[in-house]
Amino acid sequence: MTAASAEGRSDEARRGAGGGAGAGRRALVVGAGLAGCLLAVYLARDGWKVALRERRGDPRQAGAGGGRSINLAISARGLQALRRAGLEEAVLAEGVRMPGRMIHPVSGGTFFTPYSADPTRAINSVSRGGLNRLLLDAAEREPLVEVRFDRRAIDCDLARGRVEFESPGGTREHEEADLVVATDGAYSAIRGAMQRSERFDYSQEYLGHGYKELHVPPVAAGSGPHAPWAMDPAALHIWPRGGSMMIALPNRDGSFTCTLFWPWEGPASFAEVATAPQAREHFRRVYPDAVPLMPTLEEDFERNPVGALVTVRCRPWTRGGRVALLGDAAHAIVPFYGQGANASFEDCEALLDALRAHPEVPAALAAYESARKENADAIAALALRNFIEMRDLAGRRSHRLRKWIEHLLARLMPDSFEPLYDRVSFGTRPYAEALATARRHDRGFLVAGWVGAAALAVLLLVGAAWILREAVGGAAPTTPEEPTTTEPAP
Amino acid sequence: MTAASAEGRSDEARRGAGGGAGAGRRALVVGAGLAGCLLAVYLARDGWKVALRERRGDPRQAGAGGGRSINLAISARGLQALRRAGLEEAVLAEGVRMPGRMIHPVSGGTFFTPYSADPTRAINSVSRGGLNRLLLDAAEREPLVEVRFDRRAIDCDLARGRVEFESPGGTREHEEADLVVATDGAYSAIRGAMQRSERFDYSQEYLGHGYKELHVPPVAAGSGPHAPWAMDPAALHIWPRGGSMMIALPNRDGSFTCTLFWPWEGPASFAEVATAPQAREHFRRVYPDAVPLMPTLEEDFERNPVGALVTVRCRPWTRGGRVALLGDAAHAIVPFYGQGANASFEDCEALLDALRAHPEVPAALAAYESARKENADAIAALALRNFIEMRDLAGRRSHRLRKWIEHLLARLMPDSFEPLYDRVSFGTRPYAEALATARRHDRGFLVAGWVGAAALAVLLLVGAAWILREAVGGAAPTTPEEPTTTEPAP
Repeated sequence: MTAASAEGRSDEARRGAGGGAGAGRRALVVGAGLAGCLLAVYLARDGWKVALRERRGDPRQAGAGGGRSINLAISARGLQALRRAGLEEAVLAEGVRMPGRMIHPVSGGTFFTPYSADPTRAINSVSRGGLNRLLLDAAEREPLVEVRFDRRAIDCDLARGRVEFESPGGTREHEEADLVVATDGAYSAIRGAMQRSERFDYSQEYLGHGYKELHVPPVAAGSGPHAPWAMDPAALHIWPRGGSMMIALPNRDGSFTCTLFWPWEGPASFAEVATAPQAREHFRRVYPDAVPLMPTLEEDFERNPVGALVTVRCRPWTRGGRVALLGDAAHAIVPFYGQGANASFEDCEALLDALRAHPEVPAALAAYESARKENADAIAALALRNFIEMRDLAGRRSHRLRKWIEHLLARLMPDSFEPLYDRVSFGTRPYAEALATARRHDRGFLVAGWVGAAALAVLLLVGAAWILREAVGGAAPTTPEEPTTTEPAP
Repeated sequence: MTAASAEGRSDEARRGAGGGAGAGRRALVVGAGLAGCLLAVYLARDGWKVALRERRGDPRQAGAGGGRSINLAISARGLQALRRAGLEEAVLAEGVRMPGRMIHPVSGGTFFTPYSADPTRAINSVSRGGLNRLLLDAAEREPLVEVRFDRRAIDCDLARGRVEFESPGGTREHEEADLVVATDGAYSAIRGAMQRSERFDYSQEYLGHGYKELHVPPVAAGSGPHAPWAMDPAALHIWPRGGSMMIALPNRDGSFTCTLFWPWEGPASFAEVATAPQAREHFRRVYPDAVPLMPTLEEDFERNPVGALVTVRCRPWTRGGRVALLGDAAHAIVPFYGQGANASFEDCEALLDALRAHPEVPAALAAYESARKENADAIAALALRNFIEMRDLAGRRSHRLRKWIEHLLARLMPDSFEPLYDRVSFGTRPYAEALATARRHDRGFLVAGWVGAAALAVLLLVGAAWILREAVGGAAPTTPEEPTTTEPAP
C-alpha cells in the first residue's frame, strides 16, 4: 500500500509497512515534538493514515526556539525505539558519547566517575532541536504522514475523537480520527479536555528550582587537550553545590550547552542572583573554573529566561476509547535522570505493540496504559531522586564509595547485581522494576552500613580493652594472678 | 456609611459596620454559594463595596437543583463563623441536632454511639439549599452588597483582578476589583486561570466511590415513636457495609436525606447495581431495615445521578496580589467528616481577620493563605480517613471499644484528653493540631493494644502453667512427694 523508501529501516519496520495493523485507519497525532514524530513514523509504517499537527511553525525553517533547551541524554531505551524506525545510527551520528560524569568541586580540579562498570556503556548528548528536525524529516518521508504546522489544539471532543485547532490567524478547524494521540507536551490541551471530564485524577507539582541555559563555545584548535572542546567532551560535567548545581553537555560542534539549576527563592537563587553583574560575581565564587570558559556569561544570563520544572501525573491516560496521552502529555518529569525523551520513545513502542496486539482501538489503548502507567510513575520518582544525588551527593566521598562498591559488585557478580544507573540507562527492563530494585539496594546499603559501623564499634571496643589490659597488666597484676603474690601467712 | 439594619447582628458585626477596614474599596466575590454569601456579609459590614456574582439562577426563585446534595453537618467552627454575622440562631432554628451516630447492622437492630462524652454536644443537620437561601437573604440585606445571578466566570486576568463573565445568552462582560475572591467551588474557573499561570501546584484526586441521594419521607402522626420521623431524628444514621455505606440525616419536616456511598466499579457498585429492580433486590439483602421506610426507592434510584467525590489541593491560593481562592475552590474535600462548609466558613473568618490586620490587600492575602493552607490539608486528610472509619469500622466491636475508652479518658481527664472527633467538630483549635494529636493517639492506642495483648498472653501462659501443674499434681504426685508413696521394701 505504501511506496515508502526502505532507506535506513530495520527489518521490523519494513515488516510493518504496506498493510500492517493500521491499514486504512486514520490517526491524528497532536504535537510534532520528539514523541509525536517517532509515533507518526511507526503508525504510517503499520498502514495508518497519519495526520501530524504542530502548534509551532516548522522548526527547520524558522530556526528552533533557543535558550530553553536542556540537551538530551539518549540512552538504551531511546536507542532501541529509534532502531525500530531505522533511525538509531543517524541519531548516534549527531550525538556525543558520555561514558561518565566529570565532577567540578568548588575547590578546583575535577574527577571522573564512570556511569557503569562496563566502560563500553555511555549515554549520548544530543541537541533537542537537532533530534526534532531529524525526526520531522523521517516523518515527512513517510507517504502516509501529512504534517501541518501552526495548528494549535485548543479542545477535544473525547467521545468522538474530534480535535479543535486554531491557527495563528484565529481561524478554527476540526479534525477527527479513529485514533487520537496527544503528544502535545507537559501543558497538553488534550489533557486539559480530559481534566474537565469526570473523575480524572491529575497533579502538577513544581520543583522549587528553575533552570537557565548558558553556553560554553568551542575553543581554537591547539588551545587545549580537548580542542575544539574547552573541556573533556567524553563526560557530562557537573558542578554540584548542595542546594543547587550547574551541568554541561557536549555538542558535536565543540560547544557545551550548560544548564543552571538554582532555587527560585532564598540563598543563591534566581531571585538573589538576578542581574548580570551579580551573576558574574556569583560565578567567580561558586563556579570559578567555568568562568574563563564562558565569555558570554553575562549576556546569556540576562537574555535567557528561567524555566520551571514540573512533574505531571494523571490517570486515566485514555478517554472515550480513541483518545490517548503519550510522552510529557501523560507524564512530564524533571530532567535529572535524562530519561524524559527515552521514556516517551518507550511509550511509542508500547502503543505500537498494543495496536498490533489488539484489533480494536479501545482495547489497544487500555493495554497501552496498563503497560506504561506504573513505569511512568517510577521514572518520575527516580528523576526527582536523582536531583538530590546530583546536586548534594555527587561531590561527596560517601557517594563515590557507594559507586565504587556498586561497580565492584557488578564486576564480581554481573549476573545478579546491576546498579540502578545501569538498569535505567543501559537496560530496557521496566522502570518500575528498576525502582523496586533500587529500594532494595538502598535497604541493603543501609543495613551494610549499620553492620559495618557495629563491627567497627566492636573492633574498637576490643582494641581498647586489649590496650587497657596491656597498660593495666604492666602496672598491676590482674586478679587471677594475685594468689601467687598473696602467700599464706606462715 | 452603611444604613444596614442591625437585626440579628452580634456586637462584633456591628462594630465592623459603617467604615471598617474595607472602607471605599471594591471586592468581587465570584460564587454565591455558602462561603461566598457569608464572605459578602463580612466584607460589606467592614465597609467593602461587594459585587457578589453567581453562575446559576437565583435559587430562591428557581428552586434549588435537588438530587445531588448531601445534607450538611454544621458544627462548632461553622457556628462560630455564623455568629460573627449574627446568623447562628437563624441557622440552628432550621437544623436538627444530632448528638451521635445510630448504627444499623445488616443483621437488624440499631445501636447509638454518642459523638462526645459530653451529652450536650451535637452536630446540626441542615439542608444545603435552605442554608444557601438564608445566607443569600442575609447578603442581600446588606446595602453594600450587589448580587447578580446568571453570571458565569470563565477567565481571570490575575494581575489586574479582572474577571470575565458569560451570561446564558452568551454575552461577555468584565468586572474588576481591588480584591477578587473565588468562591466558585471545586471546579473553580478562577483556579483554572491560576493553573495556567506558572508554577501552580495542583492536584485533583477522585475517590473510587460515588454518591447518590435517596429519600425517607415523614410518617403519619402516631405511626411510630419518633413520628413524623420514621427513625430517631436525634442521630446521624449509618449503615456501614465494609466497602460501602448508606447514611441518613434528618430534616425538620420529618424526612431524612439519605446518601449511598458505593464504589463506581466492582462488587456492590453503581456499575453492578444499576437499575431500579437491581436496587430493590440489593436493598432487600443489604439494607433490609431501610426498605420499608423508602416508598420511592426505585424512582429515586433511577432519577438521581451518581455524583463524584474529589479532593482538590493547590498552592498558592493567591495570585497577582488581589485574587484569592476560598472554600472548595481552594480545597475541595470529601464529605465524611461533615467539615466542608465548616472549613469554608473558617476561611471567611481568616480572610476577614487578615484584611483587618493588613491594610494592603497583597499582605492580607498572604497572611490568609499562610493561616489556612496547612489546616485545609489536615481536614482533607481527616475527611478521607473518616470514610474508612465510617464504612469499615463503625459497626465493629473494636471501634466501639476505642470510642468507649476515649470517652472514659475524656471524662477522667477532661483537661488533657480530648478525642479527635471533639477537637474537629466541637472545638475551634486548628485542624492541623487536631490531626497531629490524632496521630499521637493512634500510636498510643497501638502501643496500648500491644501491651495489652502481651499482658494477656503472659496471663494465659501463667494460667496454663498453673492449670497444668494442678492437673499433673492431681493425677500423679510431683517428685518431692514421691518418697511418701514409694515405701522402702520391707
